[in-house]
Amino acid sequence: MSECQCRKCPNGFDSVCWVDWGRENLCTATERHTVTNDSIQGTGVVPGVAYAPAVWVRPRPELPEAGEPIAEDAIDAEYARFEKAADTVAERLGARAQEAVGEAGEVLKATVGMVRDRGWRKAVKKNVRSLQRAEFAVVNATDKFIDMFEKAGGLMLERTTDLKDVRDRVIAELRGEEEPGLPNAHEPSVLFADDLAPADTAGLDTEIFTALVTELGGPTSHTAIIARQLGVPCVVATGTSLRDIPSGEKVLVDGASGTISRDVDEAKARAAVAESAEREKLIAQWEGPAATRDGHRMQLLANVADPKAARASAKSQAEGVGLYRTELNFLSAAKEPAVDEQAEIYRQVFEAFGDRKVVVRTLDAGSDKPIAYATLQEEENPALGVRGLRIARNNEGLMTRQLDAIAQAAESRPEGAQTWVMAPMVATRKEATWFAGLCRERGLTAGAMIEVPAAALLADTIMPELDFVSIGTNDLTQYAMAADRLSPQLAYLTDPWQPAVLRLIQMTCEAGKRHDVPVGVCGEAAADPWLACVLTGLGVSSLSAAANALPAVGAQLAELDLDDCRAMAEAALSAAGATESREQALAAIGR
Amino acid sequence: MSECQCRKCPNGFDSVCWVDWGRENLCTATERHTVTNDSIQGTGVVPGVAYAPAVWVRPRPELPEAGEPIAEDAIDAEYARFEKAADTVAERLGARAQEAVGEAGEVLKATVGMVRDRGWRKAVKKNVRSLQRAEFAVVNATDKFIDMFEKAGGLMLERTTDLKDVRDRVIAELRGEEEPGLPNAHEPSVLFADDLAPADTAGLDTEIFTALVTELGGPTSHTAIIARQLGVPCVVATGTSLRDIPSGEKVLVDGASGTISRDVDEAKARAAVAESAEREKLIAQWEGPAATRDGHRMQLLANVADPKAARASAKSQAEGVGLYRTELNFLSAAKEPAVDEQAEIYRQVFEAFGDRKVVVRTLDAGSDKPIAYATLQEEENPALGVRGLRIARNNEGLMTRQLDAIAQAAESRPEGAQTWVMAPMVATRKEATWFAGLCRERGLTAGAMIEVPAAALLADTIMPELDFVSIGTNDLTQYAMAADRLSPQLAYLTDPWQPAVLRLIQMTCEAGKRHDVPVGVCGEAAADPWLACVLTGLGVSSLSAAANALPAVGAQLAELDLDDCRAMAEAALSAAGATESREQALAAIGR
Repeated sequence: MSECQCRKCPNGFDSVCWVDWGRENLCTATERHTVTNDSIQGTGVVPGVAYAPAVWVRPRPELPEAGEPIAEDAIDAEYARFEKAADTVAERLGARAQEAVGEAGEVLKATVGMVRDRGWRKAVKKNVRSLQRAEFAVVNATDKFIDMFEKAGGLMLERTTDLKDVRDRVIAELRGEEEPGLPNAHEPSVLFADDLAPADTAGLDTEIFTALVTELGGPTSHTAIIARQLGVPCVVATGTSLRDIPSGEKVLVDGASGTISRDVDEAKARAAVAESAEREKLIAQWEGPAATRDGHRMQLLANVADPKAARASAKSQAEGVGLYRTELNFLSAAKEPAVDEQAEIYRQVFEAFGDRKVVVRTLDAGSDKPIAYATLQEEENPALGVRGLRIARNNEGLMTRQLDAIAQAAESRPEGAQTWVMAPMVATRKEATWFAGLCRERGLTAGAMIEVPAAALLADTIMPELDFVSIGTNDLTQYAMAADRLSPQLAYLTDPWQPAVLRLIQMTCEAGKRHDVPVGVCGEAAADPWLACVLTGLGVSSLSAAANALPAVGAQLAELDLDDCRAMAEAALSAAGATESREQALAAIGR
Repeated sequence: MSECQCRKCPNGFDSVCWVDWGRENLCTATERHTVTNDSIQGTGVVPGVAYAPAVWVRPRPELPEAGEPIAEDAIDAEYARFEKAADTVAERLGARAQEAVGEAGEVLKATVGMVRDRGWRKAVKKNVRSLQRAEFAVVNATDKFIDMFEKAGGLMLERTTDLKDVRDRVIAELRGEEEPGLPNAHEPSVLFADDLAPADTAGLDTEIFTALVTELGGPTSHTAIIARQLGVPCVVATGTSLRDIPSGEKVLVDGASGTISRDVDEAKARAAVAESAEREKLIAQWEGPAATRDGHRMQLLANVADPKAARASAKSQAEGVGLYRTELNFLSAAKEPAVDEQAEIYRQVFEAFGDRKVVVRTLDAGSDKPIAYATLQEEENPALGVRGLRIARNNEGLMTRQLDAIAQAAESRPEGAQTWVMAPMVATRKEATWFAGLCRERGLTAGAMIEVPAAALLADTIMPELDFVSIGTNDLTQYAMAADRLSPQLAYLTDPWQPAVLRLIQMTCEAGKRHDVPVGVCGEAAADPWLACVLTGLGVSSLSAAANALPAVGAQLAELDLDDCRAMAEAALSAAGATESREQALAAIGR
């Protein structure tokens, strides 16, 4: 134990450390600082342990000032200089895209598309023609696009990170500087960054970069999503104290607990890595179906977004689909697809899973997933707006046509194959009743997402209307904590280990038990092996996550008895904060 | 009973009526339609009963097309024509502002300021000079300002309603048409509208317009706020079925239950009005302090925003201030006022209330109350963003300087005068601990708003850190229902009678009792006399609302025993929706 290392602690350590406010295990007003010199606490998002020297992502270049205009007769040469630099960057990223697979490769290909984009290059050309130097022309042209993307909002807004990345790479290339982003490491390292650009994570060699640690981001950030796909241990939202660690210092990263330990005894560190590798082996060997050591069954299901993802996930140990996010099929659709067109897409997803259960969620448009034909424009707070089920309030046909399409697609399924349908954003019994009625008219099994706090608080009155429910922990956490889950500043609040969130889950499970209605979980929480044990203890009967997250969950459950899970749940519920919740849950089973 | 009158019911009345989904007492899938031909249900926001013919607000003028350009030599005459029309409108509104008092007068004066605004007139002139007809020039100039206001967002966004109102009045004047808005009624009438512009409500003669009914809006809409100030019965959010009632038809409006009844027996209607008048008399005679019939005390406090409001409220029966919204002093401040400047403002508020209790809320900047020096720019969901207490996370000085100023101002208070300070948006125990520490270092009594669902869910762990809490029902409702309280489309969800909200209040009260920490309520809910009884039954010990809402609350409480209040609370908690909650609470005491 030593004094808190944070540099801005404004009260001479006499009250709660402000800078590390979000770190529940650091300091309290009564206990002063309990933080140790040799560990930094972040949010662990991909489990696994690594021990290696830190390397920092190479800094972004300083953006150029306007400077002197170029000569008129230099225009062509200047533009050629830009084109050469842009082509070099495109080739380099393209090569990396070749090596990357899956979502990472797709993301990187999209970035290459930006470097090659004719509109963007034309904008640079126009600026060069008005006598701007290439570096400055690139900044101006990119700003114009960033501005457009920001106005468009939603998913487009997220792409501005890529745009800035492209801009920085081209500017560095123009100046003959090293490419910003990933450093050229040749030995196993832990990659440190403020936040990672998609282009960085997409080309990541996991033999070299054995763990990722970022100051910003949250459990649903881009970095977290990619790290999860690559299966590389990852800790996000560490706060600024990360900056104290220089490149070259050896650190022990625990992607499960979210801890970065410094000055660790080499032998102990190696043992921790070995234990983690042992766990990885157990995970690799896990075959399913999932159950606790004493045989309490847990249904593990996959989250899918389209037929392609469904076919890939069907090869996993998933017992079915727990969350088919239908809206992701239609993000780019200008108008509503006809019932037959929709049915064909759904049919392909059903086909991938044969006679296994498939839970379809109806359109969750709005908020961060705007859909041209369904979403209201310009809400002050889209996450609290007309989204999910609410969109159908003034447009019932949107809902009934989708249910018609689901029912039509379900007709081709083998006898006995379960097709469950659930609505997002249900907040009242009335909404549940209405939706269940529409489903049953079409012979579909009716459920609801529990993601609005009111739905959890009223679970006992909503349950009798439904055949099942599924808790969406991402949104439930966002609303219960009143903190935008996409806001990097508020990541310290939006953690599903928050006891307040666990209490809502507990209420839902108790109501489910009373009314004999199965309760699933389909948020990020389901992918966290220890949290999955807590959810099991609370009475959840199915967990749905990315298919590649399931073996770790299954392997973890197999090591505990149901009573262990219950003890974990009880300990977590009475904790003072998110970090304590996790710690106390583990302590309850002697970890 | 007869069939539902809504016109869009899409299933031939075979399932829940979609259009009236929000009206919990209308239709259900099992019972079909229980709506009667002769009543429309809205949200009652100001109690009182009126029986009179409906009159509709005069429609807005059709906006002009571009049309033929005017001749160059007609420019001066055309602009003069505009100026004359604008001056006429300004004079007419100015005269009405003279008659209006308080907030209504202020709002109207601001509108007059818009008609006289030099920037706006200059924009019209520029358009006329480019040969646009005055009517079209007004539309274009106004659009430019609307666009600016919309970009600015927040409070500016709300002023766009005023801008459009100004535009419409000037266009009508230019065309020699009747001024849009309030009709020229000469006998007592019930004013019907889609929604009311501030200019309409500000000049309202309550002898003529004995009740207000609007299709849109919610309990916190502009219409509701003004109606509350004028003390005129008001029902909002009736939905489209209101349109079936023509001008001239006699209706009975109950601003407490939110019902508009048609075809009512004249004698019965007169009796209802008389009974209501009798209640008004009781209210006028109520002197305070508040208690139930059997002597259970309830502290009634006033919400204030600045020294002027404090001096006005101090003359009421309020036993003190339950919510001093400090941020409203600084909405237009470009930089943070110095500690001394702040202290002087706070001192004036304290002075107005002598030795009575004053509860100060620290800066609740962010979301819909942007403050230049404190608020983050450009959040996707400001209501779920860095607001309230969170703003101080990276800027602790903002909080400590405000607490210094409060402590400094409190020094001048008489011995024994209670100065309580509470922080908005507390979501975790850690935040409560930190804030309480800062308060106690300065000798201030420390509390927290309970408005984030997590704070209510964890009330038993947060309470021991604090001296008191106050429930902010407006935000608590917004987050619990995941529905923006300023969204007119979602008014059917954002009702504090929602049982889910009452359950959170119940949890907070139970924790308060366990830890002997007083629990107040300072949202709109405290101004609703029946809901105030439910809150009393739940264990709330103080209610804070606009000072002029207190007598109705006090008079209502005086008619019931504490056990009646408890019976009402129990009935409301187990209801299926907001309207049922209210109905069952009243039924529990035989109303």
